[in-house]
Amino acid sequence: MSTLDTAPRPAQRSEAAPRVEAMAADALTIAWPDGARHRFDALWLRDNAAGAAHRHADNDQRLFDIADLPERVTIADAHVDAAGRIAVGFEPEGLSVAYGPDWLRAHAYDGADARPWPESWDARLAERLDWHDYTAVTRDPAALYAWLDAVRRDGVALMKGVPVEEGMVCRLVSLFGYVRETNYGRLFDVRSEAKPVNMAFTSAGLGVHTDNPYRDPVPGLQLLHCLSADATGGASIVVDGFEAARRLKETAPEDYALLTRWRVPFRYRNATTDLQARRPLIEADEGGRPTAIAYNNRSIAPLDLPADVMPAFYRAYRRFSQILGDPDLAVRFEMAPGDLFVVDNRRVMHGREAFTSGTRHLQGCYADRDSLLSQLSVMERQRGGGAA
Amino acid sequence: MSTLDTAPRPAQRSEAAPRVEAMAADALTIAWPDGARHRFDALWLRDNAAGAAHRHADNDQRLFDIADLPERVTIADAHVDAAGRIAVGFEPEGLSVAYGPDWLRAHAYDGADARPWPESWDARLAERLDWHDYTAVTRDPAALYAWLDAVRRDGVALMKGVPVEEGMVCRLVSLFGYVRETNYGRLFDVRSEAKPVNMAFTSAGLGVHTDNPYRDPVPGLQLLHCLSADATGGASIVVDGFEAARRLKETAPEDYALLTRWRVPFRYRNATTDLQARRPLIEADEGGRPTAIAYNNRSIAPLDLPADVMPAFYRAYRRFSQILGDPDLAVRFEMAPGDLFVVDNRRVMHGREAFTSGTRHLQGCYADRDSLLSQLSVMERQRGGGAA
Repeated sequence: MSTLDTAPRPAQRSEAAPRVEAMAADALTIAWPDGARHRFDALWLRDNAAGAAHRHADNDQRLFDIADLPERVTIADAHVDAAGRIAVGFEPEGLSVAYGPDWLRAHAYDGADARPWPESWDARLAERLDWHDYTAVTRDPAALYAWLDAVRRDGVALMKGVPVEEGMVCRLVSLFGYVRETNYGRLFDVRSEAKPVNMAFTSAGLGVHTDNPYRDPVPGLQLLHCLSADATGGASIVVDGFEAARRLKETAPEDYALLTRWRVPFRYRNATTDLQARRPLIEADEGGRPTAIAYNNRSIAPLDLPADVMPAFYRAYRRFSQILGDPDLAVRFEMAPGDLFVVDNRRVMHGREAFTSGTRHLQGCYADRDSLLSQLSVMERQRGGGAA
Repeated sequence: MSTLDTAPRPAQRSEAAPRVEAMAADALTIAWPDGARHRFDALWLRDNAAGAAHRHADNDQRLFDIADLPERVTIADAHVDAAGRIAVGFEPEGLSVAYGPDWLRAHAYDGADARPWPESWDARLAERLDWHDYTAVTRDPAALYAWLDAVRRDGVALMKGVPVEEGMVCRLVSLFGYVRETNYGRLFDVRSEAKPVNMAFTSAGLGVHTDNPYRDPVPGLQLLHCLSADATGGASIVVDGFEAARRLKETAPEDYALLTRWRVPFRYRNATTDLQARRPLIEADEGGRPTAIAYNNRSIAPLDLPADVMPAFYRAYRRFSQILGDPDLAVRFEMAPGDLFVVDNRRVMHGREAFTSGTRHLQGCYADRDSLLSQLSVMERQRGGGAA
């Protein structure tokens, strides 16, 4: 918490102590002994004031609103105090706030626009795609961490040795978060059925896709557990949508721009349901980096883009689909009873080859990424290290 | 379903029959008897081919991928068939597909860029804000429809007469969807506590906000049910974020552009949780129309925008906050035991005035909008009318 981060750290002072390099009414520049220097705006500093008058003592939540601050906040004084903190005096409030140098450095924002393109993988992921072990994951925190970390890093993780019992997907979700219940239930069965309500429940092949783009919000994670597989065929395929997006942007930047700009309709209807949502095929942040993929040829609804955009959009859509189908991106694996995989449903597409005989029974459920990422952060905090 | 929509409708033919006004290799123009005319691209038509060869007979999902279609699809023939449908012949596949005229007209996309700004409300909503009745809503489908429709239209709905029993929020969610379980549980209690883990659990006033912007995805709906209220004060306040966005765009379009462009970090930490997400304060679609609001002064994390954006962003953020605090936008109501309200947490902000004595106990839970909208659509389909 920032209230802890800004507490004095006398033991570190001699090494880490920065100095106030420049001070103006509107901003400070702080220089660290190793040569790093960062500029902080007066209003940003005031907005991030720590201490019991400004943040809740128990939960660190901010106690004031931006509109509560003076129309113009200025810096009247700035110096390194006896505890090695940067003490800043603000006017017109006559307020003094001390900032821990480590906290300030960790939150410096000059250079924040250099956030990298997300890491992505292609078919060579197969060389390092581990099968995590159910027993280890459920008993050993380090194995649990490795499994969750793989989902965070690659957007896909495989597991073997899961008991061949119904409901295991929900039990696994409870290791890091909460099941997202939908009209398909808390969990759902994926098998060949005489009268399927969704194409996943037939024996045809399924092109790679993300699940349920017609839902708002889209499920963040999907778990699929194999309960029986005496069918011929039906291998699973996963493709990293961020890698496909990277290739599209590299080879056809104007197509990438179209797919990130225009939201398209998705829809799923049956007798009791009519789910509709609009979203771009590739969702990007302000720097043009992909943040989510939605791709599902089965549930994309009739496009309703402006007429002058339609032909170009179709060109881009087709090109993206072609990239998604490139074998150079596909990782293929077979599911035996007791196997399970997790996919990040906003990044990694999954599909399966056709299966023609015998039975196949997977059980699936949805969950969200935020609790998985929270769990990893808490585990890293407990270890006192690791990636932040 | 489109398979039904495209079936012949001989009874309607004489009135609704359109004609093929113009045909080229790349597009058709269809003219309806009332003067309406719409243009359809060849590839769009091919992509929306109906019938058992193209769409799944049971669930209407598309059976092919865009990349399965020929690189260039052209129209070789188009005429009105004996059943009044538009029959189109495509090359190079030599394929013929018939489209129902009603379906075509409903899905025309020339003019699709004229989607309106969302409806919004200000303080005058108080004049028409009904208290829905729990008993009626749980027994009478028309009353249930009216309650859900109010949530869809206004993003807020009040209810009275809810039994003063724990767990009612979850029971009400079951009328239209599914509880979103989080680290706060399936439901959570909001009351004054000696050692609060979240500021909502204290007796201080709470500025208007959306809940949990640090979650990904953000909960779409919140229900809050009053179990006891012998405290002084603590009135609830709601503000339409879309109206605030509209006023910001009208008075300071450059500020609106900044808030829709830049994603900001939100964070919530306690001993067992570390939830983080980035999102814009105002999420907008490709036409600049707001689609979601995230505003929470307590959990917005230290801003990490590029240094040259920071001062302007703060100006925009403060202006938006000032608009949100304008009494001209606020609707205020008091919650007595048995009262409940629902807010669309991606549109409508809620807050409360301080309460100083006695006890106050609300119970809340989260759910998502998609199942509520689905439920309304299905009810409208069953009625055979209503808004689509």
